[in-house]
Amino acid sequence: MITSTTDPQPADFADVRATNLAVVLRFVREHAPCSRADIAASTGLNKATVSSLVADLIDRRLVRETGLTENRVGRPATMLVLDGSPYAAIGVEVNVDYVTAVAVDLSGERLLSWRRSFSGATITAAQAVATVAAIVRRVVNRMAKEERQVLGLAVGVPGLVGTDGTVRIAPNLGWRDADLCGDLTKALRDPGFPVQVDNDANLAALAEHRFGPRAGTANLVYLTGEIGVGAGVVLDGRLRRGGQGYGGEIGHIQLDPLGAECRCGRLGCLEAVAGIGAVLEHAALSPAEVEIELDEVVRLARAADPRILAVLATVGHNLGKGVAVIANLLNPEVVILGGYYVPLAPWLLPAVEAELRGRTIAPDAGGCQVVASTLGYGAAALGGAARVLDSVDSGRLPRIS
Amino acid sequence: MITSTTDPQPADFADVRATNLAVVLRFVREHAPCSRADIAASTGLNKATVSSLVADLIDRRLVRETGLTENRVGRPATMLVLDGSPYAAIGVEVNVDYVTAVAVDLSGERLLSWRRSFSGATITAAQAVATVAAIVRRVVNRMAKEERQVLGLAVGVPGLVGTDGTVRIAPNLGWRDADLCGDLTKALRDPGFPVQVDNDANLAALAEHRFGPRAGTANLVYLTGEIGVGAGVVLDGRLRRGGQGYGGEIGHIQLDPLGAECRCGRLGCLEAVAGIGAVLEHAALSPAEVEIELDEVVRLARAADPRILAVLATVGHNLGKGVAVIANLLNPEVVILGGYYVPLAPWLLPAVEAELRGRTIAPDAGGCQVVASTLGYGAAALGGAARVLDSVDSGRLPRIS
Repeated sequence: MITSTTDPQPADFADVRATNLAVVLRFVREHAPCSRADIAASTGLNKATVSSLVADLIDRRLVRETGLTENRVGRPATMLVLDGSPYAAIGVEVNVDYVTAVAVDLSGERLLSWRRSFSGATITAAQAVATVAAIVRRVVNRMAKEERQVLGLAVGVPGLVGTDGTVRIAPNLGWRDADLCGDLTKALRDPGFPVQVDNDANLAALAEHRFGPRAGTANLVYLTGEIGVGAGVVLDGRLRRGGQGYGGEIGHIQLDPLGAECRCGRLGCLEAVAGIGAVLEHAALSPAEVEIELDEVVRLARAADPRILAVLATVGHNLGKGVAVIANLLNPEVVILGGYYVPLAPWLLPAVEAELRGRTIAPDAGGCQVVASTLGYGAAALGGAARVLDSVDSGRLPRIS
Repeated sequence: MITSTTDPQPADFADVRATNLAVVLRFVREHAPCSRADIAASTGLNKATVSSLVADLIDRRLVRETGLTENRVGRPATMLVLDGSPYAAIGVEVNVDYVTAVAVDLSGERLLSWRRSFSGATITAAQAVATVAAIVRRVVNRMAKEERQVLGLAVGVPGLVGTDGTVRIAPNLGWRDADLCGDLTKALRDPGFPVQVDNDANLAALAEHRFGPRAGTANLVYLTGEIGVGAGVVLDGRLRRGGQGYGGEIGHIQLDPLGAECRCGRLGCLEAVAGIGAVLEHAALSPAEVEIELDEVVRLARAADPRILAVLATVGHNLGKGVAVIANLLNPEVVILGGYYVPLAPWLLPAVEAELRGRTIAPDAGGCQVVASTLGYGAAALGGAARVLDSVDSGRLPRIS
């Protein structure tokens, strides 16, 4: 009988030092200020190894010694804290109607957050690359002025992104098989830092998992409430992308075989009956200027306009059916509604929760809560920066500058 | 800004030795025969540590030295192979109409495989415990005669099993909040090995992931084709249970708001329109004796009975809608149809694949294949044994006897 590798997968055999560097860096991130002896005691690494690893992290200015010492019997221990002041991680989100850029330091402190409007639906992928490259260059220049080295860039796109970073299909941008990662690297003229491309929902889920109010929740699903609806799925503390990286495509699961026609040509897709387009269409508002129209929807809902309340209840019930699918199949602790769902959450959530509770087989919906994101429209860009920091935490350390 | 732990999670800080034992054991499992020097070179552990770890594994008779030596310059190296001959892992499945027991050795070789019919729907949980305990005692006695120590027992149940091993609801068995794990441990009079309880689909997925033709596939979903339909979800090489352990409940996601009534009271649940009950009901056969009736369905399908072929096509299309939900949300490499779906697979699969391809947004269904299980009705029991072996591989080593 053939047997195969299952759990655990504690480390690449090949790269124990990188893993150990990551273990020490994470320990300092979580327990600073702490001493080398603390690290050795908690990680099981021997003291000589810890000293060597810490020296490496100090050389890279990821960790620094403080003046503090610990009060204890014997020789006082020098305490370590996270440094990272000379670094920046950059995240960018390209969406149908805006581009967002965020830079954070190693501790996650936001260094800048820019948003500009964008005509994603009408320009070509090449034009989009030029626009994004121009913004990234400005961010990099700003960071250079602050004497920060850029650790990496991750760009979020609303579409299917392969594990190699190719955008296979981004329907709302009209892109197909776009090598965004390669083209952007070229446009930036080999910038000296890694460039990654990911699905926007995946990055937003990473942002919530690292920076949001529910940070650290083991099982968390983020739903982008844009013109399209995608899911970012974190299970057991890590993003789950599936075999080819195409997981999280909840927008085109069919909720109702007799439902409204979706732009994909099918009937009753979640996106068609529970996306923001459904809100605007039922409210007889044009989806051309989503944000302006949404402001109007919110105003009418606040004024208890019965037609708008009925529309939001219907969309909420449909969205709840989709959330129930997630809860039954994945049993997350929390589903986070993002994007344009956030301003509508007060009116959507009661219906979402009713459907969730009515449709889950586990008692109390398996403990699944539904909340609105607090990270705003920059969630995916912030998640791009989180993905860069995750790479560092995984042992892909910056070169010594 | 608050930051939190994300990837990687290379090891419990607390238990580096257990992790290292597991690393060495897995290396020997995959690369035997191999030398201590091979292990040191590939794992990055130093030679003294490897020698100490190997000694520990030899003491526990998990690994043994062979007479073989490696041809190389210098002192000949003694080669190591997996031992485990004195051990057995036991898996049991309790289902509506049968109980299955399987025992395997450390390499996964099947030592015994028993199946007996059972009246799960009519007896109480206490009677079921007595029946299962009697079977387990017989297995343990048989193993004792072979001078094997039992490493552990894992029992699969068709229902919601909490992370603590409590069976919250097993609708088709009529159980609710049954402490199967505790009651079974008592009935076995503290047997000296750990007892675990899990959902049957979860265990079957583990069996496929460890022993099936697609063993080692990173992203794999198993669907139990019993009276109920559950999913076992393996993503990135590990079973994903969700926050409370209730993941995989695909049976009650709604495929059609106007569909047939499910035993749960809702309309158009996957279980109601794509379960084996739907096959038998549409074929106007009684579900009382599932296996006998299924034989009749297969006979009629082979004879190209038009009514039966239409029934199987309908059920296949419904099942395909459910598989498409899985493919869109999780993008697995393979979905494996188990249980009673296996004999019907030749007639179900074309419809399943048509729906899968038509309903997934990723090109070529994101590479997702649908296949019938080859592990038979014992899949969940075999998965119980796999779960016990996984515990050993994770460093929970048997005591030295």
